Amino acid sequence: MSEEREPVRVGVLGARGRMGAEVCRTVDAADDLELVAMVDDGDGLFAVQDAGAEVVVDFTTPDVVMDNLHWCVEQGIHAVVGTSGFTPARLDRVEAWLRNRPEVGVVVAPNFALGAVLMMEFAQRAARYFESVEVIELHHPKKLDAPSGTALRTAELIAEAREAAGLGDVPDATKDELEGARGGRVRGIPVHSIRSAGLVAHQEVLFGGVGETLTLRHDSLDRSSFMPGVLLAVRAVTGRPGLTVGLGPLLG
Amino acid sequence: MSEEREPVRVGVLGARGRMGAEVCRTVDAADDLELVAMVDDGDGLFAVQDAGAEVVVDFTTPDVVMDNLHWCVEQGIHAVVGTSGFTPARLDRVEAWLRNRPEVGVVVAPNFALGAVLMMEFAQRAARYFESVEVIELHHPKKLDAPSGTALRTAELIAEAREAAGLGDVPDATKDELEGARGGRVRGIPVHSIRSAGLVAHQEVLFGGVGETLTLRHDSLDRSSFMPGVLLAVRAVTGRPGLTVGLGPLLG
Amino acid sequence: MSEEREPVRVGVLGARGRMGAEVCRTVDAADDLELVAMVDDGDGLFAVQDAGAEVVVDFTTPDVVMDNLHWCVEQGIHAVVGTSGFTPARLDRVEAWLRNRPEVGVVVAPNFALGAVLMMEFAQRAARYFESVEVIELHHPKKLDAPSGTALRTAELIAEAREAAGLGDVPDATKDELEGARGGRVRGIPVHSIRSAGLVAHQEVLFGGVGETLTLRHDSLDRSSFMPGVLLAVRAVTGRPGLTVGLGPLLG
Amino acid sequence: MSEEREPVRVGVLGARGRMGAEVCRTVDAADDLELVAMVDDGDGLFAVQDAGAEVVVDFTTPDVVMDNLHWCVEQGIHAVVGTSGFTPARLDRVEAWLRNRPEVGVVVAPNFALGAVLMMEFAQRAARYFESVEVIELHHPKKLDAPSGTALRTAELIAEAREAAGLGDVPDATKDELEGARGGRVRGIPVHSIRSAGLVAHQEVLFGGVGETLTLRHDSLDRSSFMPGVLLAVRAVTGRPGLTVGLGPLLG
Repeated sequence: MSEEREPVRVGVLGARGRMGAEVCRTVDAADDLELVAMVDDGDGLFAVQDAGAEVVVDFTTPDVVMDNLHWCVEQGIHAVVGTSGFTPARLDRVEAWLRNRPEVGVVVAPNFALGAVLMMEFAQRAARYFESVEVIELHHPKKLDAPSGTALRTAELIAEAREAAGLGDVPDATKDELEGARGGRVRGIPVHSIRSAGLVAHQEVLFGGVGETLTLRHDSLDRSSFMPGVLLAVRAVTGRPGLTVGLGPLLG
Repeated sequence: MSEEREPVRVGVLGARGRMGAEVCRTVDAADDLELVAMVDDGDGLFAVQDAGAEVVVDFTTPDVVMDNLHWCVEQGIHAVVGTSGFTPARLDRVEAWLRNRPEVGVVVAPNFALGAVLMMEFAQRAARYFESVEVIELHHPKKLDAPSGTALRTAELIAEAREAAGLGDVPDATKDELEGARGGRVRGIPVHSIRSAGLVAHQEVLFGGVGETLTLRHDSLDRSSFMPGVLLAVRAVTGRPGLTVGLGPLLG
Repeated sequence: MSEEREPVRVGVLGARGRMGAEVCRTVDAADDLELVAMVDDGDGLFAVQDAGAEVVVDFTTPDVVMDNLHWCVEQGIHAVVGTSGFTPARLDRVEAWLRNRPEVGVVVAPNFALGAVLMMEFAQRAARYFESVEVIELHHPKKLDAPSGTALRTAELIAEAREAAGLGDVPDATKDELEGARGGRVRGIPVHSIRSAGLVAHQEVLFGGVGETLTLRHDSLDRSSFMPGVLLAVRAVTGRPGLTVGLGPLLG
Repeated sequence: MSEEREPVRVGVLGARGRMGAEVCRTVDAADDLELVAMVDDGDGLFAVQDAGAEVVVDFTTPDVVMDNLHWCVEQGIHAVVGTSGFTPARLDRVEAWLRNRPEVGVVVAPNFALGAVLMMEFAQRAARYFESVEVIELHHPKKLDAPSGTALRTAELIAEAREAAGLGDVPDATKDELEGARGGRVRGIPVHSIRSAGLVAHQEVLFGGVGETLTLRHDSLDRSSFMPGVLLAVRAVTGRPGLTVGLGPLLG
């Protein structure tokens, strides 16, 4: 890197949350980034602007993230968003805002772990070659939702790929089922949620064909696993105007 | 083994089924056993008696197995039974028959694979030490029932052990569930059934405690995996009067 | 498919071997293919030509495969080769033959299971994103070589991708090692070979980065798993002049 | 528990190390234990005695642990030891000391995670039923030794059980081996060490027989996983005079 290049100025929203605090430490430790603002509940967003932030990282909550994001786009500040709850309707609204500010970049991602991003990419790629597929996600027992956002997204990507390839339903001769044993269904794909002490965040995608299975498994053992993906997004967003969903397109 | 010992005379019921045929081949190949009768639909049971069978192996169907077994006990022929569908009520009836013929032995087992038997034993043993536990069974997509008989039995053994140890429900904060995602419940234990091409018969028991998990996994890749257990039972049953449920007690 | 399309005429070399026999059954069962010649030790290759074969499938042995292949190319017959032992020098010779017959297609593949082909593709793709990687292959105990050909190829693809991305050695602080515990090394990538009764052919590739791991696993439970890949190659090779190594390029 | 029961008074040696500090927090949080002394490098052991400790927990280093332990036994203080490096010769010396102080209890354990203790017990139990077995341990890449102490101990327990059952070598037809691919050997049992970023401490024991495999897997995700085992040992040691090796005997 040339010495003339100034570090990118980064502000963090949700800076006192567990993920936000980790992001602050990570940005602070990166030579090519400068942490200029740490904002949380009760602080004004103006601190971000006053500090001259070029990029904002948002790990807040679904009820405030849309206001934060709208404000960033209006101010011409790029945004990397890890907050959950981004429905298609919400993504449409973000795109509408960006039409008025075509120079601004926004990255919204359900999962910043590189391994999870690759797992989703590979699942989408493999889907057309196997008649059977099931998604099994495993998390700590304090998780409120089942399945996880990553599992839902994975199942949707698989379903789309199967439809495009003309595959029908997964084969299943079950006649006599204990209610729930065969899991939930996301666009026809069975999804199973395991909850256990000792686990953090894990997912398996099992593909099956004639005489063989292919299994993709991702294990996140701690929050640090999300940081390389956050850094990748922060570095990429300034050169990537418009809306980007998921880290996949940034992996090149 | 001393040379004077005569081979044990064995008859097979359901001899033309896939399991029965494999049992016939296996008995035939064992030096200390002699295959004296192969009986299937339409054949009379008398062939077994005429051939002087000391032990009968039954891999038939739930609708005929009780008649077969009653007849064997009456004739004083020991029996090893792999046919499914043995409810507690059925086991009670077998015990009642055996009270009149105390010299006869009957072994009824849900699974003859040694690895599956050990998996159940270990699951029962580990259950009291972990707050979390889930059972995941994986089978080929032509299987009619979900969960498998082995998974049901495993979950029951775990539930009994947890109750005996005073453990309550497994921890689970799920508030927002896609129907079925958290699996079925067998006496409170979550059980998940995966169905996929390329699979045969597999089961995982996942235990979780503070900062750790313990996983027991059994994979049956073909029917041959059941044969060592069938041989073990055939050899043991003549010296073991009364009813034995599962191969566990025979492993010593 | 239009009704006018004639079935492709296929000859099988090594037709009495275990893989060859399975290929014969599979070709015979496919509507768009016709099995016109089954050749094995002692039979002449002329039978293939007399029968008008357009494509030959070769599952023979390393000592005869080069002669077979040379003859096919000379006769203008396309070839799909699953025989092992194809060193870079052998592949060069095949390419030289094909320069004189540019209309002929040859596919040489180390593994015809679609899942194994995808596992290799994904391993190559993921390699640049993780500092750690190890390959673990698991096979039945009658296998003569360790590691397997697929594991060697996987490790080479990973090593190439790491070099292209400027990654150095995998991190490893081991000071005190029981000889062999850390596995063998293929261009710096640790490779471990497990041999056990009850296994068929399996492979895991484990990638590790900060706080996360990504695992790719392929399980072949029987030879039938190779047949979809053989069919894919037979159908593709007539429209694909020149040499193709591995099924990857055919997956589209 | 009756209200009259006084809490057990506990001292911790190596209290500023990572494990020792976690033990201090854990003892402090337990209602039936009282943390009365925290000792580390440079502190005198007399602090332990002055504080009236009944039990000492030692997570120090191989070079000082024998002196610590000798002193404890002399003073009549029970000890729970997690420090590594206990060879058979060292254990013999501890037993000799205890002969003079028959009322004192000492527990020395290579692994305090309950799941690891059960894994070893189950491996020992299953060993006689399977012709094949391999141990695979997986750890973070900063680990200095390969294989881990737990893997060595597991392999030894398996080897003993196989010998007692009259089993010979594991089957292995390997003729052509890349050096190290087949792992290291501990009394004939193949042991493989995987090192990868993203891992903590994990072990798999794979047993294989005719058509089936049984896999035992333990995953430690953080140091907290050792605390239930430490508590179990502290509570048991006062009623268990003499030397106890491993937590197995305490699990009841």
